[in-house]
Amino acid sequence: MGNCCDRPKDTYIRVSLPAVCFVWQIAMVVLFGVFIRYNEESDAHWPEYKKKQNITSDAENDFYYRYPSFQDVHVMIFVGFGFLMTFLKRYSFGGVGFNFLIAAFGLQWALLMQGWFHSLDYNTGKIYIGIENLINADFCCAGCLIAYGALLGKVSPVQLLVVTLFGITLFAVEEYIILNLLHCRDAGGSMVIHAFGGYYGLAISWVLYRQNLNQSKHLQGSVYHSDVFAMIGTLFLWMFWPSFNSAIANHGDGQHRAAINTYVALASSVLTAVAVSSLSHRTGKLDMVHIQNATLAGGVAMGASAEFMITPYGALIVGFCCGIISTFGFVVVTPFLERKLKLQDTCGIHNLHAVPGMLGGFISAIVAAAATESVYSKEGLVSTLGLEGKFANRSPGTQGGYQAAGTCVAIAFGLVGGAIVGFILKIPIWGDPADDNCFDDEVYWEVPEDEETIHPVLEYNNHMTHKQQDITESNFTLEQS
Amino acid sequence: MGNCCDRPKDTYIRVSLPAVCFVWQIAMVVLFGVFIRYNEESDAHWPEYKKKQNITSDAENDFYYRYPSFQDVHVMIFVGFGFLMTFLKRYSFGGVGFNFLIAAFGLQWALLMQGWFHSLDYNTGKIYIGIENLINADFCCAGCLIAYGALLGKVSPVQLLVVTLFGITLFAVEEYIILNLLHCRDAGGSMVIHAFGGYYGLAISWVLYRQNLNQSKHLQGSVYHSDVFAMIGTLFLWMFWPSFNSAIANHGDGQHRAAINTYVALASSVLTAVAVSSLSHRTGKLDMVHIQNATLAGGVAMGASAEFMITPYGALIVGFCCGIISTFGFVVVTPFLERKLKLQDTCGIHNLHAVPGMLGGFISAIVAAAATESVYSKEGLVSTLGLEGKFANRSPGTQGGYQAAGTCVAIAFGLVGGAIVGFILKIPIWGDPADDNCFDDEVYWEVPEDEETIHPVLEYNNHMTHKQQDITESNFTLEQS
Amino acid sequence: MGNCCDRPKDTYIRVSLPAVCFVWQIAMVVLFGVFIRYNEESDAHWPEYKKKQNITSDAENDFYYRYPSFQDVHVMIFVGFGFLMTFLKRYSFGGVGFNFLIAAFGLQWALLMQGWFHSLDYNTGKIYIGIENLINADFCCAGCLIAYGALLGKVSPVQLLVVTLFGITLFAVEEYIILNLLHCRDAGGSMVIHAFGGYYGLAISWVLYRQNLNQSKHLQGSVYHSDVFAMIGTLFLWMFWPSFNSAIANHGDGQHRAAINTYVALASSVLTAVAVSSLSHRTGKLDMVHIQNATLAGGVAMGASAEFMITPYGALIVGFCCGIISTFGFVVVTPFLERKLKLQDTCGIHNLHAVPGMLGGFISAIVAAAATESVYSKEGLVSTLGLEGKFANRSPGTQGGYQAAGTCVAIAFGLVGGAIVGFILKIPIWGDPADDNCFDDEVYWEVPEDEETIHPVLEYNNHMTHKQQDITESNFTLEQS
Repeated sequence: MGNCCDRPKDTYIRVSLPAVCFVWQIAMVVLFGVFIRYNEESDAHWPEYKKKQNITSDAENDFYYRYPSFQDVHVMIFVGFGFLMTFLKRYSFGGVGFNFLIAAFGLQWALLMQGWFHSLDYNTGKIYIGIENLINADFCCAGCLIAYGALLGKVSPVQLLVVTLFGITLFAVEEYIILNLLHCRDAGGSMVIHAFGGYYGLAISWVLYRQNLNQSKHLQGSVYHSDVFAMIGTLFLWMFWPSFNSAIANHGDGQHRAAINTYVALASSVLTAVAVSSLSHRTGKLDMVHIQNATLAGGVAMGASAEFMITPYGALIVGFCCGIISTFGFVVVTPFLERKLKLQDTCGIHNLHAVPGMLGGFISAIVAAAATESVYSKEGLVSTLGLEGKFANRSPGTQGGYQAAGTCVAIAFGLVGGAIVGFILKIPIWGDPADDNCFDDEVYWEVPEDEETIHPVLEYNNHMTHKQQDITESNFTLEQS
Repeated sequence: MGNCCDRPKDTYIRVSLPAVCFVWQIAMVVLFGVFIRYNEESDAHWPEYKKKQNITSDAENDFYYRYPSFQDVHVMIFVGFGFLMTFLKRYSFGGVGFNFLIAAFGLQWALLMQGWFHSLDYNTGKIYIGIENLINADFCCAGCLIAYGALLGKVSPVQLLVVTLFGITLFAVEEYIILNLLHCRDAGGSMVIHAFGGYYGLAISWVLYRQNLNQSKHLQGSVYHSDVFAMIGTLFLWMFWPSFNSAIANHGDGQHRAAINTYVALASSVLTAVAVSSLSHRTGKLDMVHIQNATLAGGVAMGASAEFMITPYGALIVGFCCGIISTFGFVVVTPFLERKLKLQDTCGIHNLHAVPGMLGGFISAIVAAAATESVYSKEGLVSTLGLEGKFANRSPGTQGGYQAAGTCVAIAFGLVGGAIVGFILKIPIWGDPADDNCFDDEVYWEVPEDEETIHPVLEYNNHMTHKQQDITESNFTLEQS
Repeated sequence: MGNCCDRPKDTYIRVSLPAVCFVWQIAMVVLFGVFIRYNEESDAHWPEYKKKQNITSDAENDFYYRYPSFQDVHVMIFVGFGFLMTFLKRYSFGGVGFNFLIAAFGLQWALLMQGWFHSLDYNTGKIYIGIENLINADFCCAGCLIAYGALLGKVSPVQLLVVTLFGITLFAVEEYIILNLLHCRDAGGSMVIHAFGGYYGLAISWVLYRQNLNQSKHLQGSVYHSDVFAMIGTLFLWMFWPSFNSAIANHGDGQHRAAINTYVALASSVLTAVAVSSLSHRTGKLDMVHIQNATLAGGVAMGASAEFMITPYGALIVGFCCGIISTFGFVVVTPFLERKLKLQDTCGIHNLHAVPGMLGGFISAIVAAAATESVYSKEGLVSTLGLEGKFANRSPGTQGGYQAAGTCVAIAFGLVGGAIVGFILKIPIWGDPADDNCFDDEVYWEVPEDEETIHPVLEYNNHMTHKQQDITESNFTLEQS
């Protein structure tokens, strides 16, 4: 893929990283100054607003409906995604640290981008934000962090900030098209977050294919404790996924149902992931990679239909199938993609996000198309499928078609956007590591010296070795004499 | 205990584990299909229901009263119990991974079992579920995870799934007897969860006694970092215990008071656990096992009386005593049980769950018996002790007697049920490890190669050793010549 | 600084630690018995109270407004501060374990001290507690845990309990002066928690200066995995800081706005901390110390003005500047303080708490002074700045002056109180470690044997070494013969 990269790599980022951070952060300050204000629920005028709107209790402030879910989502973004990526033996700093950097920048840019598309008041030219905007900003970051999963260990922090800048921008556009123009329902973001983020990352990784990556092979696995760290990420993602899928669902039954559906779908994924993992080993041993990832597939796939009346057993079936498909992907598809399609996907986001996200979109199409007034009630059907305003005449069947179309839009945006961003990242100014330097924290982090001073065994060992050496040497001398 | 096990062990689980996972998960799908539906608060008919019931605000949906506590309980089940069991030097995968598997299966089966006993609508034959059912399902899993603590490292994942299947079933029955027939109050599950789960696990472990377990002695301790991992579990259990004990308490003052009581009881446990731990060492050094476990005893013991007007200083006293008793148990009782009763209890659940749970049950008997109308108010007494409907004529004293009886029922179910399940587990088809293979992740997990490639010291060391060897060998040759 | 300490240190704490724990815990039980009762929202009389006050819904119980934030704060105190202090290579037990002990004692003493100052009913002589008291007790502990950051690894647990006893006492007094007498606003505790706690710890550490601390130099750094553990602390602090700053803010817009302001300020800190960290290294590598600490500075500095209409871009600017100042402090100021002022600050609390806390206080003075009715609305200005009751005539400008004065009071209390406590700690009865024994868990913990038994490489290595030794020895004998 071009030979512009066939030269010694320079990972000096002392100019580029601070420059990008400062320039972008100053831009954020300026743009926030021009555009972002508190909305009526977070503004000090709230007591007046409450009276005007006949709201009797502060408990009606959206903050109290959504803040617990927001904090759970926040944990998923920073600890969940962050620690899931600590599994490599020598890239834990990069996994959790760059995840932190990406998300902290991404959420600011997302507040602006999503604000322009969704919350801009055309009279005042301002974006008014409240708790729901914060949740959406976190969601938006999730897309970029998924993409980071495919790139983990192979790119520089400057490149990651570029991936984030474009990723958030693309996200806001595709989200606007899918949620506003096509008017799809996607409470948990199967399509807008997972399918988009997954294919975005895969496309970038495909463009950045490294022929000689096996030079870093010795660092591409895990060690015992790094796998345990990664389980922290897995579990926080798994546990809080019901909050993820219900965070911006409708008040009342919407949030309630989304949480239940996600809870049971995830439980089902765990069992089938374990089953397939065991089947794929000669004596039935489990593989940590599958447990860390495929157990989450049910949550991804439930995203788009979380609010729907999919019924608890429907959710179980979704989780059942996705646990199998995802584990199968790790066992068979990822190695195949690497060999045949020259696609290097460090965390296997193809199996955890891209495919289950796409499936989730299509599942939501089927479930939406099957919706009836008897199951949802008249009012429930309108509010759950969002068939209000100019979409009041849409039938459930039509809505189903749009759900499928939305999924395709998300994938298309991911693939095309990712390919373009990939080519931008090939410009040799971003300080990315050489092929034999990947998956190594030494490149971008001051790594502490190793544990020699605290291992008495090792010290003893060293000591003995030196002693013997003395003996051997003196021995040698003796002989010569 | 029989010599059916005196043969080489076969830990091949490639058939049994996938088979059990698939069959049970498919059974779950079918049973959910037949029985489980959304309740009126999570169904799309909620807007209609709201109008019919004159509910003015979505904030009255039980979801908003209980969801934050639910998520805290969820964290306790998966991260709390899971990471608490990572303390062994080479069984962290099994600790956190099998915990994950047990809970993911257990919560599905619990939704059904508890549903049949508590939420079955006899007109429609359906179980209608909402957020409270999810909390109860998590609680139900807790019982089995406690039992896992006694078995940690000595059983196969297939055996654990059997333990869970029977454990959840027994749990639902004893819970029905204790909460519905005896009409005990047990908001935080001192008796139904901790006393039952504790004695259930101990009875199983007693039946599965391994005479030659000392062959795995070298793996039965912790290493530095595995102890730090276990502290993650301890702290999340400790911090969220107020949510555990208040999650299904009455709205309003019930949840509020349960949280306060648990909060202060736990604080008190920490100080006495530290004191006794220090006392039990020659120069006053603390033992991580005590800090990881005994600090939680106050939360266990406050379970049954969390909602009661035990007063903050009453809660402090409960925590004070249980911190001492639990630490004393780790120092003295567990070794005694192992030597004299042939009871191997890996995590010491006897000291953390069985005994404090039993004490919690009896404490609740005393506190209930001492309840008066002046302290609780007329209405408060009725709602706190649940003296409504057909129990309206029960006096606080009688209620106290029933609380004590309930505790005994829980213990009896645990002991008898555990003994039976133990004998089932002795059938030599479950792929359990041999005595010299316990506490070792190698048996059921693909464990990553060790850290050799990333330790420069070691590499240097190896290098030197080889060099010397060369010298020595050549030396040797020289001499011979 | 005196030579009363120039003698061999005795770290025997088997008498002092249990004695202090028991005596203080018994004192807590007695004092709770005399003073502490449930307030009207956590008492069983709540149903009556509700009717009397015309409260229509249990959702109006303060529990539901504040419990989710309380649990987040609780996580910050125990996991956040605790794991942030696990970064040392051989003091992780002490970091997370003593943090646990301090907080568990501190919150009990804080309930009393703060109760006497803020919640005492003069008619009954009782302190009535509810969820807000629990949050404030946790806040109060935070001050002492910050101080622990400066002392980490250099003091005994008995000394830490003394630091906590005095720290909580001083905290309650300065808080009463600042919040009640001066009537400052400080929702997130920039001044009362961070400035006070920071300078309190620095003053103690200054008095306890250890001339020969470099004898423990080899243990004063981190290792790879201890840095990853510390990131758990960092991230939970970072994620839940919006809850910290909004936990006791006004219902409705107050909590909502405080969360938004903190969220954006923290995001901004991350980017500038990364930028300065990269700038300060020869080739632009990042330093984990900066990422673990300086990224949090924005949250500290937003504390006092979290509730104010500082606007989102104002919050961004605060985070922007504090990220720079804090990282700069780690790079330049801490080494300077150690060399010139003989101030040893293990965790660098000067840069994370003392300075950003002080700045936060002064920022709040400016923002308060700039408040206008048009921005806040009439009612909003009164409730946000607290200009009610006897403070109704205060102008925003005057309030600004008082905010600045409050900051100075907090610093003065910290410095003077810390100096006094430091001298108390120099009495040679507390079992503190010798200079060459600092930063070592061996002193106060039973540390597990090292990983020899589980490292095949090492075993092989040992094996080879012994073999060679045999060869060499036999060799030697041969020659002699």
